Parts: sequence; structure tokens; C-alpha cells
Amino acid sequence: MIQIPGIIDPHVHVREPGATHKEDWDSATAAALAGGVTMLLAMPNTRPPVTDADTLQLALDSASARARCDYAQFLGAGADNAASAAPLAGRVAGLKMYLDQTYGPLRLDELHTWMEHFTHWPETAPIAVHAEGRTLAAVILVAMLHDHPLHVCHVATQEEILLIRAAKEKGFPITCEVTPHHLFLSTEDLPRLPGGRGEVRPRLARPQDVQALWDNLDVIDCFATDHAPHTLAEKYGPNPPPGFPGLETALPLYLTALAGGRLTLDDIITRCYTNPRRIFGLPEQPQTWVEIDPAARGEIRAADGYTRCAWTPFEGFPVQGKITRVVLRGQEVFKNGQVLAQPGTGRDIRSRSYLSQ
Amino acid sequence: MIQIPGIIDPHVHVREPGATHKEDWDSATAAALAGGVTMLLAMPNTRPPVTDADTLQLALDSASARARCDYAQFLGAGADNAASAAPLAGRVAGLKMYLDQTYGPLRLDELHTWMEHFTHWPETAPIAVHAEGRTLAAVILVAMLHDHPLHVCHVATQEEILLIRAAKEKGFPITCEVTPHHLFLSTEDLPRLPGGRGEVRPRLARPQDVQALWDNLDVIDCFATDHAPHTLAEKYGPNPPPGFPGLETALPLYLTALAGGRLTLDDIITRCYTNPRRIFGLPEQPQTWVEIDPAARGEIRAADGYTRCAWTPFEGFPVQGKITRVVLRGQEVFKNGQVLAQPGTGRDIRSRSYLSQ
Repeated sequence: MIQIPGIIDPHVHVREPGATHKEDWDSATAAALAGGVTMLLAMPNTRPPVTDADTLQLALDSASARARCDYAQFLGAGADNAASAAPLAGRVAGLKMYLDQTYGPLRLDELHTWMEHFTHWPETAPIAVHAEGRTLAAVILVAMLHDHPLHVCHVATQEEILLIRAAKEKGFPITCEVTPHHLFLSTEDLPRLPGGRGEVRPRLARPQDVQALWDNLDVIDCFATDHAPHTLAEKYGPNPPPGFPGLETALPLYLTALAGGRLTLDDIITRCYTNPRRIFGLPEQPQTWVEIDPAARGEIRAADGYTRCAWTPFEGFPVQGKITRVVLRGQEVFKNGQVLAQPGTGRDIRSRSYLSQ
Repeated sequence: MIQIPGIIDPHVHVREPGATHKEDWDSATAAALAGGVTMLLAMPNTRPPVTDADTLQLALDSASARARCDYAQFLGAGADNAASAAPLAGRVAGLKMYLDQTYGPLRLDELHTWMEHFTHWPETAPIAVHAEGRTLAAVILVAMLHDHPLHVCHVATQEEILLIRAAKEKGFPITCEVTPHHLFLSTEDLPRLPGGRGEVRPRLARPQDVQALWDNLDVIDCFATDHAPHTLAEKYGPNPPPGFPGLETALPLYLTALAGGRLTLDDIITRCYTNPRRIFGLPEQPQTWVEIDPAARGEIRAADGYTRCAWTPFEGFPVQGKITRVVLRGQEVFKNGQVLAQPGTGRDIRSRSYLSQ
């Protein structure tokens, strides 16, 4: 048996408020615990998007009522909320800026809007960006001009990881995350992901891009699922929305890479716990751990999962390494395939009363 | 009478080889001298584009045979010539990188191609870029990561000039140029430029963008015409090509701004002579000057000009300040409206024998 800290997933789409037929705080956090994730950071591209005090409260109320693991909520950068968002910085995971097209209503086209957000957002509070290719280069410059650290979400290509390497080597305070689907899937998997199943942003990349991520593992600060559930009906419909679920499958995939010698246990703990805590300024969860049977073999099956979307792009993948038990703040919350935590027991880690409730 | 140094125009589309119905080295350099320009830097998006030793020789042979003023030729950055272009750096004005859509076949879409060029091109040799908006931010970052000075062509918008201001204030070795059409025209001029007459890249910008250029004059290193002649038949046809002529109208427009108190004579000389020489490492032209009657009034008329395209977006603009005489290397080359220099008397300023011919 291996025991590791509770996994922190810094990139999760909970879908509540607004799209609870895909997922909600109950089902997302059940899936999280089943995947060894005891703390998640929730993205703001909900309906309505979380961009001000009212919508933040709406999201936090939902979370407080139904979450089974600990969490913080990102605030979304909009065209007009740079000044009004900043005072909320202490209550949220960070500011999320959507600079390239993806799912949801938030996208910032104008460079001057980006600059307004970097001007207003406190320099000690995290900024995370969806920025691909030359957009990534552009926002790194803007972050630098404002002396603000930058966290880059879901790096997917060779040119992006090499750009981040170069920026780090220049001493810029830039960090990044990579998703399991960009580490373990490529364009070669698209034929077995028909219709909209293969749609995700950033897109699945070429095998040489996947290889570049592995070759530059030292540049990757975090693993993050970008858990983005949509129903199969939506994925097979017209204009399929981009996104894959990932909360339950990530750690088994990393453990399989551990068994195969591609990752060390330290590689995993650093990217799933130590670095997310440091980058996002997250508190320690006392008496919290994940127990793993590293020898147990199986295969990924959506039918075994908790996510409401009920499918996975990794269906049938053989895995080695099984999550046997999860303990969160002294409570047994997952054991033998069963989520034991009740809805509403998860806590907002940005709340002043996080550990005194 | 005012006497100023021979104007250096660092951004001219001569159109030869390949499109001599629009312009050639003879007509372009006649227009240059009529506009007080005694040295021009020629852009590489000709047909064929100038991207290697053979096409460079083709362009330089044309120039040698027909140019009436001094010149250097830019080399174009292509998808595959980063390594082979670098050895030509000493023979050309600099490397031109087209990173956004414009006229001609050269455009670099891939960030890694940009990086290859910055890696190979000598750090002492100029790199000039067509990059708008977020593309500009991206290439500034890439230049910084390679510790390479960067020259930004035809800045047109508020967000671009403010970005360059911020980069300069951070100490980056970045320089820029602005065209007369972006200083003196805006989207409000489009109704009197029907069909494709108003098409130019970067596009004419909003009045607030024009105002931002004037408000940030201290950030503008050079005035450059981006002289880009197309025939009126082409401009009124389907898919009109973008571009304005400008060689003959630029200095009269600057002198009119001088008369109106918007520019000082030092503002003009710094941006039309001192800074282009410094940025592109250009030699002094001995016994070279432009004589001006600052009181003479008139209006801009394409019919008076030398450019083969035979139109101007400034038709009918009242101007104050007339170029009366131009002397190049001791020879009277323009007087009383007549170009006196013969084709073939212009010299390649990157040639080792520039002043010993």
C-alpha cells in the first residue's frame, strides 16, 4: 500500500450553476473523491459565469450545499469587470482569463482588457489563463510587463511547452499545468472517439507534441484534469461542446505511468499536491491522504464512475494502481469503490473559517 | 529656406521584381527623390519574394540597374529559410517577418518558426516585424527571450502604441515606426476612399487610435511610408490589394504639421533620419540634403507625382512646405519638381563599395 497526500486538482468544470444535467457540486465532488482528489479549484464559465460578487455567492452557495470535497471557486475575467473583480481576490482561487475560444461565454479579445485585469488584480493573487500558441506568448509578455506571476492552463503543444521553458529560463515567474488527456492521448486517438467525443480545447495534439510534454516534464508544474463533462447526447449532437471528464481517471493513469517507469511517485506528488499548493496559496488539509494499491490491475470503465456525464475518452484503458481509500480531514470519504462523504461536507478553502467550522 | 538631411524611408514596397506595372526601381526611386527621400529600405514581398541568395541577387540587380536613390533590400523570413538566411544578414537592410495577413506570399504562422529565425539571425542585424495586436505582444516576448532588438513596423492602434510604451519602459530594446496614413487618416476618411481605395494593412484605425499615436509621439522612433503602390484598376477590382503610395506625400504632410505646430523640425529629422540610421545601422550619405520652402502652400495632387500607380489617398489635401531641391552625394537630383538623377545612379548602402564606386 502507498499513501500519498490528498490530490489537488486546480482545473475542474463543476457545471453548477446552470448545467446540472452535465454535472453539479454533488456529482463532481463525488467523482473527485473517487479519483483521490480532496481539493479542487472550480472554473468560472458556468451559466451565469462567475464574474462578480452575486454570481460568486451563487456558486459558493451551491458548493456549500452539495460539495463532498474541499474547493475554491475561480472568478472569470470579463470585458468590464477588471476594477470590480479585484476586491474579490481573497475569496476566490484566482482570476481565470479566457483568451482563446473555448466552451462558455467568457473570452477577452482586446489586449487592453487583458492589461486592465493585470493592472487591477492583486499581484499576490493567482492569474490562470487559457492561451494557446501565439496568444500564450502575448499573455506572457503582458504578465511580465505588469510584474505579475502567470499560471498557464492545459499546455498541449511542443511550441507552447518550449516557449514556457524559455520564459522560465529567463527567470519569469510562470507556471503551467498539463492535462492527462494531453499526456496520454493524441490525434491518433481521434478515430476511436467519433462524432464530438474527440472535441476538446486545447485540441488533442500530434504525437510529437505529446512526446514534447514528456520530454519537458521538468517544466510542467502541475497535472490538472480540466474535467469538463458533457453528456454523450451533447457530444454526438450538432456543434458538440469541447471537453472531457477526467477526475476519476487521472490518478489511475499517473499510477500506470509510475508502474511503467515513466513517472516517479515524487513526480506525481510534486505536480498533484506540492506545486498546486504553492502556486495557488492553498492551505494544508490536516489528516488527509489517499491510499493506493500499486499492484492492482484493472481497466478504465465509465460505468464504474460517479461523474454524471457517464463516459470517458479512456474507456477500456488498462491501468495498474488502484485508489483503495481516501481520508479527508480525519473522515473516511472513499473506500472500496464507494464515496462515503455526504453532500455539504466539503469546505471552501478561501473561507476564513475553513478549519474552524 | 530650410535645409534638412536626406530623408531615410525604412519601409518601401518597390514592387520589382514581379509587379512592375505597379512600380519598379526606376519609378519608386524617382518618387522617393521627389519626396526628399535619398535612401530607402525595400521590402521583400515581391514576386518572387526575396528569401535567399538568388532572389536577393535578382532584386539587387534590378536596383543596381534602375535605382535613382540609395537603398538596401530586406530579406523575407520564410517557413524554411531561418538557417540559410542568416549568412545573408550583412548584405541586406534586415530580416522582415510577416506575422499577420497582408499583401504577398510571406507569412509565418508557427511560433516555432519565429523562434528559429530569432535563433539564427545575427543579434546585431535588424529584425522588423508586421505584427498587430496580440501578435505584436507575442513577438515582443519572443524577441526578448532571444535577447534580440525588435523593430515594429507601422504601428496603428492605441493598444499597440501603449504596449510598445510599456515594453520600452521595461527597458526592452524595441523600436517602432508609424506611417503618415495612420497619422493623418482614420476610419472617418473611408467614405471618400471608395471601393478598395481605403484598403491598407494595418487598416486605417479609429480617430482615438490616431490621437493615441500623436499623444505618444515620444514612443515613435521613425516615420516610414509603407509606400505600397497598386493601380487604381486593382484597387477598384475584386479583392482589392491593400496598400497606399506614400513616398511623395509624406514629407509635405510632416511639414504641414510643422507649420501647424503639431511637429517640430527636430521631431521630423529625428524620425526621418537620425533614428532610422541608428536602428538599421545605415551609413552617412555625404553631401546629401533636402531644401525646403516652409512657407509655400499647395495641395497634394497625384497628377504631379512620379509613382507609377498614379493616385494618392491624400488627393486634394492642402499642404504647407515644399521640397524645392534635393542633393544626393554632391549631385543635384531633384529641383523645381523635376527628378534629375538618372536610373542606375542609386547605390546599395550594404555594398562594401558603397562610397568608393
